[in-house]
Amino acid sequence: MKEFTGLVFKMDTKENYKALLKEFSDYIILDQIESLINWDFETYMPPEGVMQRSKQLSMIAALIHEKITNPKVGELLKKIKEDLESLGEIEKRNIFLIERKYNQKVKIPIELAGELAKQKAISTQTWKKAKKEKNYALFKPEFDKLLELSKKKANYIDPNKEPFDVLMDEFEPNMTSIMVTRIFDELKKGLIPIIKKCTNSPNQPDSSLLKRNCPIDMQRKISEDISQLVNYDLERGRIDETEHPFTTGYYDDVRITTHYFENDFSDSFYTVLHEAGHALYEQNLSREYMYQPIGWFSSYGIHESQSRFIENIIGRSREFWEFYKPKFDEITQGKFSDIDLDSLIHVVNEVKPSKIRITADEVTYGLHIIIRFEIERDLLAGKITTEELPEVWNAKYKDYLGVVIEDDAEGVMQDTHWPSGLFGYFPSYALGNCYGAQMLAKMVEDIPNFKELVRNGDLKPIINWMTEKVHKASNLYDPPDLIKRITGEEINVKYFIQYLEEKYSKIYGL
Amino acid sequence: MKEFTGLVFKMDTKENYKALLKEFSDYIILDQIESLINWDFETYMPPEGVMQRSKQLSMIAALIHEKITNPKVGELLKKIKEDLESLGEIEKRNIFLIERKYNQKVKIPIELAGELAKQKAISTQTWKKAKKEKNYALFKPEFDKLLELSKKKANYIDPNKEPFDVLMDEFEPNMTSIMVTRIFDELKKGLIPIIKKCTNSPNQPDSSLLKRNCPIDMQRKISEDISQLVNYDLERGRIDETEHPFTTGYYDDVRITTHYFENDFSDSFYTVLHEAGHALYEQNLSREYMYQPIGWFSSYGIHESQSRFIENIIGRSREFWEFYKPKFDEITQGKFSDIDLDSLIHVVNEVKPSKIRITADEVTYGLHIIIRFEIERDLLAGKITTEELPEVWNAKYKDYLGVVIEDDAEGVMQDTHWPSGLFGYFPSYALGNCYGAQMLAKMVEDIPNFKELVRNGDLKPIINWMTEKVHKASNLYDPPDLIKRITGEEINVKYFIQYLEEKYSKIYGL
Repeated sequence: MKEFTGLVFKMDTKENYKALLKEFSDYIILDQIESLINWDFETYMPPEGVMQRSKQLSMIAALIHEKITNPKVGELLKKIKEDLESLGEIEKRNIFLIERKYNQKVKIPIELAGELAKQKAISTQTWKKAKKEKNYALFKPEFDKLLELSKKKANYIDPNKEPFDVLMDEFEPNMTSIMVTRIFDELKKGLIPIIKKCTNSPNQPDSSLLKRNCPIDMQRKISEDISQLVNYDLERGRIDETEHPFTTGYYDDVRITTHYFENDFSDSFYTVLHEAGHALYEQNLSREYMYQPIGWFSSYGIHESQSRFIENIIGRSREFWEFYKPKFDEITQGKFSDIDLDSLIHVVNEVKPSKIRITADEVTYGLHIIIRFEIERDLLAGKITTEELPEVWNAKYKDYLGVVIEDDAEGVMQDTHWPSGLFGYFPSYALGNCYGAQMLAKMVEDIPNFKELVRNGDLKPIINWMTEKVHKASNLYDPPDLIKRITGEEINVKYFIQYLEEKYSKIYGL
Repeated sequence: MKEFTGLVFKMDTKENYKALLKEFSDYIILDQIESLINWDFETYMPPEGVMQRSKQLSMIAALIHEKITNPKVGELLKKIKEDLESLGEIEKRNIFLIERKYNQKVKIPIELAGELAKQKAISTQTWKKAKKEKNYALFKPEFDKLLELSKKKANYIDPNKEPFDVLMDEFEPNMTSIMVTRIFDELKKGLIPIIKKCTNSPNQPDSSLLKRNCPIDMQRKISEDISQLVNYDLERGRIDETEHPFTTGYYDDVRITTHYFENDFSDSFYTVLHEAGHALYEQNLSREYMYQPIGWFSSYGIHESQSRFIENIIGRSREFWEFYKPKFDEITQGKFSDIDLDSLIHVVNEVKPSKIRITADEVTYGLHIIIRFEIERDLLAGKITTEELPEVWNAKYKDYLGVVIEDDAEGVMQDTHWPSGLFGYFPSYALGNCYGAQMLAKMVEDIPNFKELVRNGDLKPIINWMTEKVHKASNLYDPPDLIKRITGEEINVKYFIQYLEEKYSKIYGL
């Protein structure tokens, strides 16, 4: 039989590849089940169901971990890699992605994974209490432990790389803190003058306009209407209400949530557009890649580019409101019809340095992220300590945004990310803005009547462009490659800065 | 070390017992996840999510099957049983229940399980089409295959028992077709004269009363109100809407569903009471048994006794409406306030032989079940063929209920049970009525002011009695033992017949 070895071997590789994809597909199905359980937890679970739910979540997390760290996966990877060249590019990408995920999980000793999960829970719990009491000292010891365990984890995954880079790799693959530093330094340089010009302008919006009462029922109608306007498919999705909005699921079951405030319709309005942007990505992933590693989004930053494109670039544009104001006035029965277009556009684009990231506007938002990135990078590199953290935080907020932090609840303890061990995550938010504006520049080349389309509420060609370039690429490319394929160049901050300068010059009459 | 063997052995049994309970607890958690996925499927899943959902359901079903048929379970059972006497009664019951479940699953070859699952899906699909087309001939070949596979399955589980008995054991443990035949013969003898008397009475209800328009929003308020009146805990449950109502979950997350018809408030009214009765059982299981085999309901028949007790014995009683009519009139804003109590009670208790089981009244319902049982028993014993099925069905409907079946869609193909392979299930429905009335007789001995309590809307002592006697017993006893412990005697049809005679004599003025 020796003469057939080569052939048999190649057949084996195909067989092994198929077997590996089957394992991965099971992993995705389990991941979907976990998403559903979490969705129910946030939406409809009876209040007393917490204990039962936590057991379900532990169980499914364990099954997911078992599935991806199954020694069978390692063996199949090893065998396939010995004959990798017999596979095509797509197959190679699948193998690469499975291996990356496998390594991220399997290299972490099971005891460390357990300790980390436990410490995340403790640290989150303590953070809630400490935030309420504005008491950073209470939070610090638990945060120290979490930080140490996270560094250990990074060290297990790749001892040759900066811990920050290793951790960021889960969210923004193939990005390093050196690259992010370069990008963010430039971004900071661009943002600060725009913010100064806007805040110093005598031309300021009337923020009371958004505070008018708008009944929740009307807002629900608006949610449905605008989500469909941007092509979110409600036959493959749904809108529910949760305290913290989110998007979950993929392909044919992609659900978004929002929250309603009677005295601020704009909160839910832009939440829905934001989440619908995320949902479009998931609904429009390439169908032929479903249940494969490539049938996934490219990165959290690319995901954020999609949500912010719909929320800000489309939804806060003059052209959007030119189209939508009459419909809006109809649904809200004239409650806002006396507001002229200029005033409305100004107030939904108010630039105002603030202490809180999640309510920040499109321009100042980037600085909130840059502050977090710089601190987190230095923290993980051991250049600053958790002792110094509040001081460094407050100084940067004074320096970059000109705001004075009064206590640590509105300062260093405002976000859930660090207490829950999400290190390396923040950059994605600001990268998303940059990716989005860079895509816009290219899109306008391809679709010269872009503004006219928005003005006519005809978003289909715009969404189609995004689908062709981004959604359907799915996870074929890491972000640096993807952005280059789409726009012809590497990530370039200038597009976002130019977009902002042009937009805010008009709005603020600079 | 030899002198310690005995001790070590005993310690091992305790350890093994603990390990076995852990396996079972995992099985229950997976079962809960499956329930949640199914609940979402019926309630909120986007229409296009079916394909993804079916993969999730197959995955979780496979995990559940793996968990309970894990060889580890068999080994632990074997070891424990060698030293069973060292365990207490509760522990022995847990072992007995795990072994029963294990045998029900592990004895079926995996290929047969797969074939059965597939044939259930095909047969259900074909049934839907055949029912629509009123074409039994289309359904018959697929049903034949399903029946053969089901008999095979029964034969694998226990070749020494009647297939019907083996299959019924999953729903009504420790009950045989001989026992059911005896019970149902007596039941039939009791029911037929009552039905005749009611239908021959000149005193008939005005069925148009229920057809009055009642807006869904009002009905939703009623649902919430009556479910809480019967002590259903909405902090540990919720009410949603589905085409076919059901109850799912246990302990702290027990959800019910209903469906609303604007021109028949009574449908949802009694659906909610029925499902709330099921939910009370699940919410009030003994908390110390949670995640153990004994922390479960005793049988489908006992479950049905709880739902029918709340729906019929409480909810269709004169005393209930004496209490609830004013509140009902308030919520429905006087739409029904001109209807006097006698007329209302008569119309919600109308006795009317019909062709369709699920809309049958409290008295005729039993005959629908008896017909199904007799046919199914003879079918599985090979005494009648699927060829003869429609003919036998129609003859029995003529004979027992005096109705003429016009086609097989409203005849032998009306229910989903047979097409989906639920053999041995039907008896539970009618046994539930008998159990419930027998419990009532005992309850009235213990709570002589039973009727007064209902008249005052003070259901707490009544529910508490049920909780103490039934819910908290959980799965400590199989139904024959349970009913004997509660009432001091074996199942006795006379209580149900007496209850009906007394109730309907008054309502129909016999």
